Amino acid sequence: MKNVFNFADGNKNQLSLLGGKGANLAEMTSLQLPVPTGFTITTTACLNFLKQSAGISTALKVEIQEHIDFMEEKTGKQFGNQENPLLISVRSGSKFSMPGMMDTILNLGLNDDAVEGLVKRTGDGRFAYDCYRRLLQMFGDVVCGIEKERFEEQLTFFKEQKKYLSDTELSEADWRQLVKIYKDIYVEVMHEPFPQDPIEQLYRSVEAVFLSWNNRRAQTYRRLHGISDDLGTAVNIQEMVFGNAGFESGTGVAFTRNPATGEKKLFGEFLLNAQGEDVVAGVRTPQSIMELQKIMPEVYHEFETISHQLEKHYQEMQDIEFTIEKRKLYILQTRNGKRTAKAAFQIASDLVAENVITKQAAIQRIKPEMITQLLHPVFEAEHLKKAQKVAQGLPASPGAANGKIYFTAESAKRASEQGEKVILMRQETSPEDIEGMMVSEAIVTARGGMTSHAAVVARGMGVCCVAGCEALNVDEFLEQVTCGERILHAGDEISVDGSTGMIYVGTIPYVQGNEQKLLETFVMWAKENAALNVRANAETPNDIQTALKLGADGIGLARTEHMFFGEQRIVAMQKLILAEEKAALREPLDYLKTYQKADFKQIFTLVAEKPCTIRLLDPPLHEFLPKTTEEIAVLAEEIQQPAHQIAQRIAELHEVNPMLGHRGCRLGITTPEIYDMQVTAIIEAAIEVSKIKNNQKIVPEIMIPLVGSQEEMSWLKTQLSRTIQQVFSQQNYTLEYKLGTMLEIPRACLIADKIANYAEFFSFGTNDLTQLTYGFSRDDAQTYINDYLDKKILPIDPFQHIDRQGVGALMKVATEKIKAVDPTLKIGVCGEVGGDPASIEFLQELAIDYVSCSPYRIPAAILTIAQVAIKNQVTHPVKEVQLQK
Amino acid sequence: MKNVFNFADGNKNQLSLLGGKGANLAEMTSLQLPVPTGFTITTTACLNFLKQSAGISTALKVEIQEHIDFMEEKTGKQFGNQENPLLISVRSGSKFSMPGMMDTILNLGLNDDAVEGLVKRTGDGRFAYDCYRRLLQMFGDVVCGIEKERFEEQLTFFKEQKKYLSDTELSEADWRQLVKIYKDIYVEVMHEPFPQDPIEQLYRSVEAVFLSWNNRRAQTYRRLHGISDDLGTAVNIQEMVFGNAGFESGTGVAFTRNPATGEKKLFGEFLLNAQGEDVVAGVRTPQSIMELQKIMPEVYHEFETISHQLEKHYQEMQDIEFTIEKRKLYILQTRNGKRTAKAAFQIASDLVAENVITKQAAIQRIKPEMITQLLHPVFEAEHLKKAQKVAQGLPASPGAANGKIYFTAESAKRASEQGEKVILMRQETSPEDIEGMMVSEAIVTARGGMTSHAAVVARGMGVCCVAGCEALNVDEFLEQVTCGERILHAGDEISVDGSTGMIYVGTIPYVQGNEQKLLETFVMWAKENAALNVRANAETPNDIQTALKLGADGIGLARTEHMFFGEQRIVAMQKLILAEEKAALREPLDYLKTYQKADFKQIFTLVAEKPCTIRLLDPPLHEFLPKTTEEIAVLAEEIQQPAHQIAQRIAELHEVNPMLGHRGCRLGITTPEIYDMQVTAIIEAAIEVSKIKNNQKIVPEIMIPLVGSQEEMSWLKTQLSRTIQQVFSQQNYTLEYKLGTMLEIPRACLIADKIANYAEFFSFGTNDLTQLTYGFSRDDAQTYINDYLDKKILPIDPFQHIDRQGVGALMKVATEKIKAVDPTLKIGVCGEVGGDPASIEFLQELAIDYVSCSPYRIPAAILTIAQVAIKNQVTHPVKEVQLQK
Repeated sequence: MKNVFNFADGNKNQLSLLGGKGANLAEMTSLQLPVPTGFTITTTACLNFLKQSAGISTALKVEIQEHIDFMEEKTGKQFGNQENPLLISVRSGSKFSMPGMMDTILNLGLNDDAVEGLVKRTGDGRFAYDCYRRLLQMFGDVVCGIEKERFEEQLTFFKEQKKYLSDTELSEADWRQLVKIYKDIYVEVMHEPFPQDPIEQLYRSVEAVFLSWNNRRAQTYRRLHGISDDLGTAVNIQEMVFGNAGFESGTGVAFTRNPATGEKKLFGEFLLNAQGEDVVAGVRTPQSIMELQKIMPEVYHEFETISHQLEKHYQEMQDIEFTIEKRKLYILQTRNGKRTAKAAFQIASDLVAENVITKQAAIQRIKPEMITQLLHPVFEAEHLKKAQKVAQGLPASPGAANGKIYFTAESAKRASEQGEKVILMRQETSPEDIEGMMVSEAIVTARGGMTSHAAVVARGMGVCCVAGCEALNVDEFLEQVTCGERILHAGDEISVDGSTGMIYVGTIPYVQGNEQKLLETFVMWAKENAALNVRANAETPNDIQTALKLGADGIGLARTEHMFFGEQRIVAMQKLILAEEKAALREPLDYLKTYQKADFKQIFTLVAEKPCTIRLLDPPLHEFLPKTTEEIAVLAEEIQQPAHQIAQRIAELHEVNPMLGHRGCRLGITTPEIYDMQVTAIIEAAIEVSKIKNNQKIVPEIMIPLVGSQEEMSWLKTQLSRTIQQVFSQQNYTLEYKLGTMLEIPRACLIADKIANYAEFFSFGTNDLTQLTYGFSRDDAQTYINDYLDKKILPIDPFQHIDRQGVGALMKVATEKIKAVDPTLKIGVCGEVGGDPASIEFLQELAIDYVSCSPYRIPAAILTIAQVAIKNQVTHPVKEVQLQK
Repeated sequence: MKNVFNFADGNKNQLSLLGGKGANLAEMTSLQLPVPTGFTITTTACLNFLKQSAGISTALKVEIQEHIDFMEEKTGKQFGNQENPLLISVRSGSKFSMPGMMDTILNLGLNDDAVEGLVKRTGDGRFAYDCYRRLLQMFGDVVCGIEKERFEEQLTFFKEQKKYLSDTELSEADWRQLVKIYKDIYVEVMHEPFPQDPIEQLYRSVEAVFLSWNNRRAQTYRRLHGISDDLGTAVNIQEMVFGNAGFESGTGVAFTRNPATGEKKLFGEFLLNAQGEDVVAGVRTPQSIMELQKIMPEVYHEFETISHQLEKHYQEMQDIEFTIEKRKLYILQTRNGKRTAKAAFQIASDLVAENVITKQAAIQRIKPEMITQLLHPVFEAEHLKKAQKVAQGLPASPGAANGKIYFTAESAKRASEQGEKVILMRQETSPEDIEGMMVSEAIVTARGGMTSHAAVVARGMGVCCVAGCEALNVDEFLEQVTCGERILHAGDEISVDGSTGMIYVGTIPYVQGNEQKLLETFVMWAKENAALNVRANAETPNDIQTALKLGADGIGLARTEHMFFGEQRIVAMQKLILAEEKAALREPLDYLKTYQKADFKQIFTLVAEKPCTIRLLDPPLHEFLPKTTEEIAVLAEEIQQPAHQIAQRIAELHEVNPMLGHRGCRLGITTPEIYDMQVTAIIEAAIEVSKIKNNQKIVPEIMIPLVGSQEEMSWLKTQLSRTIQQVFSQQNYTLEYKLGTMLEIPRACLIADKIANYAEFFSFGTNDLTQLTYGFSRDDAQTYINDYLDKKILPIDPFQHIDRQGVGALMKVATEKIKAVDPTLKIGVCGEVGGDPASIEFLQELAIDYVSCSPYRIPAAILTIAQVAIKNQVTHPVKEVQLQK
């Protein structure tokens, strides 16, 4: 096994073996770019070394020595030579970029003889001794573990004595003296002199770089970024070139395009007479790369040509490190450049326009979370630095907002009507807060998780939201919030970052992130590749329009209960619930039907021929009743019924565990009048819209929630079909419709084949399914879910990302059973995870037909679906090639 | 295919083909008992007839005619003969006894000629014409659908005219006249004369009996008793014998043993000069069978001999119908006799002692519900008839009780201390009511199902309980209960039947059902055959002793939280919960540990070497905190903490859905101090008991509730093992222990193999598993569960009987996964269904190791397990024989 590769022998695909830096140096060498000579010691060598813990093997030493010999031959320089010494850099470089996590040693090969050789060769003793002291410090630090400060403080002391302000004031004599001091430090700590043998320096440096793979910084970084501990690092040995060899030398970094905006124009900076570390250290302010054009036009021109070449070669915007030594350009590193979301979209889009990459490749380059950054406002970075934090909660709905806080929906509404920018802050929200939420710039709750009422509604509205901010103690009565020592009152200004969950005092300015045009392009491209449809969870005209604009293929979940909370309707609903006898149901039902029908007509008109799933009433009845004595009194007055009777009925309907209560199809079975009213409204609305639009085909998909047994489904199917047939004969008009069900009860998944004998479509309600599969109440669980995440007991929050082992297993059972009964039955997913990129690959494996999510999550969902489809297509041909061998 | 069988050609095993009556008549004919000649038309013939609806087929008619010919030959009588006519009875008889549901026609074969023949043969014209009018009435009713009343009212009218008081006063002439009147009625309705051809009478009667299989009464009966509609009825044709041929004739019914007590002594009654229907009609009071010995000793002796013979032959107590015609005894029917629970035990036990049946056969004859009847008090039947019902709820814990009602635990306790018999009535109970429940004769709740707190605790204590009695409106403040118009106040007397769910006003006397000795015998026999162990859900010394006495093989579930509700302990628990910082936990934890340890020592001492599973704290913390402002004030005073702080903490701990809340292992992980305290107490207690008992082996099984992921199990295993090791080193003593978990979260079942890498035993908590699999809250679901049962949407209440399709499917997945990891891992079931006979066969199919149930359900569980094992052993050899063919 070869442990060492000349740059000339590798290529860019050998990331695992040579590390990112090594592979790209090899690639650039093949491209005949001006890369200083060198070689790479492989990650395999590193792993063997780490396994054996017996120092560098003799075999490896032999290989290294051979390559050094080759370098000497090629450069005409010699290790330790007094005339023309070979100096090298030693750098780590693993498969995945881990910036600053591992170690680098420059100027290696210097010793008391070679430094004189460097003086001779460069005619610059000051430079040569500066290099030597740098080696002493880096070697001392990296190889021997001598704290940098021990060297730095001597330099500082020396400058103070000499009354120097900057390093550039030190003369050759000064550096010679410091080299001596540094050597003494080395002896003092190591009880031996600094090694004069360059090859010994090299072996020890290679060992140190190998070991740096396991230093604490590197381990932590890997854990944070999900990088495996088993990769090891390569070591790159390269001939030194000197950007600090005077003012015809320099060093810099440049991007081939603007990483903030994506503009197609070199973007970068450089420093004359400096080594790489000086640029990073920020001692002097670097100049724009454009300045180089003026100072050394031919070097600039060469660099520009190379940068075009590299970008074209890698088909991606590059981040290039270069050094100029006496007007000679060297390229030291290239890699794909990091960029903002906006730039990512712009560059990918431009590269397609330039015919460099395909649309599919462009899609693969967009991370789903970039869409959020593209669409939502963000705080201005410089203001954010100075901002005063109040608390941090869950980033429930992205965006940035500022405004005055109010603690009730009513006061928020009132303030908003007076033209104030309002932020609604509540212990937790309920459907009754909806009007307050609608006028708010942001919503903050002290309780509840990523799928709490506030979070779901806010995402649906595209309003910024921080939920479950447990440090806040919201006192809605006193109209104040306490957070530790701090107290904020109604009307105080705060700023809310829904992308990070952070809350600040005062008003922080933000910038709009809206880039609709770019997004539309990508959604269009993605849809050409997507294997799954994406529908929207939406029922208001506003939401539906947004959803369609963002690419929705239809409506996957229109929640009819949201329609009951309007001012007029809630009273009718309350009358319905308080009715003492069946006869008293009639009037409020008729009243509600009128409203519902109008709603459905709006929906069908907007959605047109696209599919549209409407879910029948889901929540338990008590959610619609007032809670406080005061509210009861108001209602009693309004509907002319004694308050104690109302209170009595509320007590009757009280449930210990409403999530497991008398709701969904259970209500539909015990009080069939409600569902009858709803399907009548749906079918009448569909007929009227169809008539208006010249018999346009409308196929309402009526979805029954909370089914757990085939008997529930068959009972309701019989009941509702009968009602629908009545509507058909009354209207003398028929149309196609479907009766389907949610899969949100574990039992429904276990017996999905039986239910499939009756249901005509299915939709996984992953929110409730997750609640029941885990036994987690999403209203209450955030406290221990947070603790679980901290203790690594939960790898992910299952309300945000699909739990493949548990919930996923039930979904798999269900889809298999359903498709076995009838492979044409459509299956969707309308819970939160339906819009979660991290969950979509799994959902696609299940062979479902569509996902449905809140409007603002649609583009990311479409993109992820396309990415998965493209990835799988890419994998297939490779496999086929392998098979042909 | 033969459609008709002579009695001499069948046997008792042909129940399906010949019906019960036919098969037994055939059997008795083979035994050469005095059975009147006859034959049976098969159920197959019936089913064919019903399928074709084209009348009786010619082929069947031919077969019937042949058998009539044979009867004529054998008896020397002839159909319709004027000298010696053949008269027959036509009776239905299906596989399962359906008493009175189908039809019978007697005296068939009489016509205007044959009646004269009967007069000649018997010399009794009065008798002959009485027979004729009976035929007219029965044929009219059964075959032609003429209402019986039309005949009866003529008889009544005739008697009024003649001023007769009883039928016996009618002369031959009177009956002749009535026969004429009856014939006229027949013509009036049917527009044709009564058929004079006996064979036509017969065909039409057979048709009518066939058709009676589908009459409404029969259909309803079958639905109620779960009898299939596909069986059909046989028809038995038999020569008439006449118990009404004077005072040397008679008819009667007798049991071979006493059906109430089981005593081995003929038990029955008879009437002289009567036909069977007269005994049933109750016109005259029958005499005891013992009287027959005096009146006709030789007939009695013959009957006694036959009854012994039949009992021995059938190996079971028989219920025999007989007729005496002129001192000649005929046996008309025999079947296994119905009996009380007490008699069932006594007879089965005696038959074993008499070497008639094996112990295993005896076990098969006891229905599990009989044990309840044997153990619990029952109201005296005659008093019950007169009792005034208040309402009916769920029969949550069997037994009968009476006493004065009280509406709070406190007032119940106070009244009990003053020597009153107390019944606790509450809207619903909570753990804080426990002391009130302990002093009560019965517990009644207005809300909650068969697995509500009240029900579970009451069954555990063996106290009578009616739960979820929704008609009651309990006002605990006013100390009264309203039920419709009725209002009862504290101190009013009621009676409660926990076996039927009925509540009565006033005091109804009851009788003790305790038959401990008989029960112990059967439990002993059953255990010899049981393939599963039965453990108890018990933690108090009283319950544990009861459980062991009733046959428990150990403790399957000792709930530690029940131990926190004592007066002293609850305050410590409350202090613990209200602690502001970790340091403040120490004192209450130490305090609780002392108590818990004493509890565990008691448990280990009682249970000795039997296995004992102790579950760590399960409910959410807020269950331990006060609810009302008043209670908070009391606590604030007691623990010297401001009331508003306590109220604040209560608000913090409030949960929307406590069932899905912060409880079980979630609490164990977020506040590890509690579980640490508990395992320390368990292990210290085990060590101390072991030491006291000469190092007796005690292996505590520590069970962690509510685990849903392998990470929870592994985290807690690490944590608790560390704590236990510390106890071992402090005590300088080690013992074996096991750490296991409940399977009560659907997800835990789905990933049971992963959990099995850590857990050392498992126990299905079917109550919570059912709640989560269905999404039913057992605190709230009873209203719609009742509606579902009514509408047949639920075939069973899944909290009472295992839901095989859903919950059962999860259990199957889990057991398979666990046994695949390690087949020696023990798996139990500790939910309600663990003690439910109807569920046990399914549980045994799962290959679990034990069930655990409340103490009073243990004997029934053991019995059922034995029955299943015996049944399966019987099946196996049969299968093997089939394989050898």
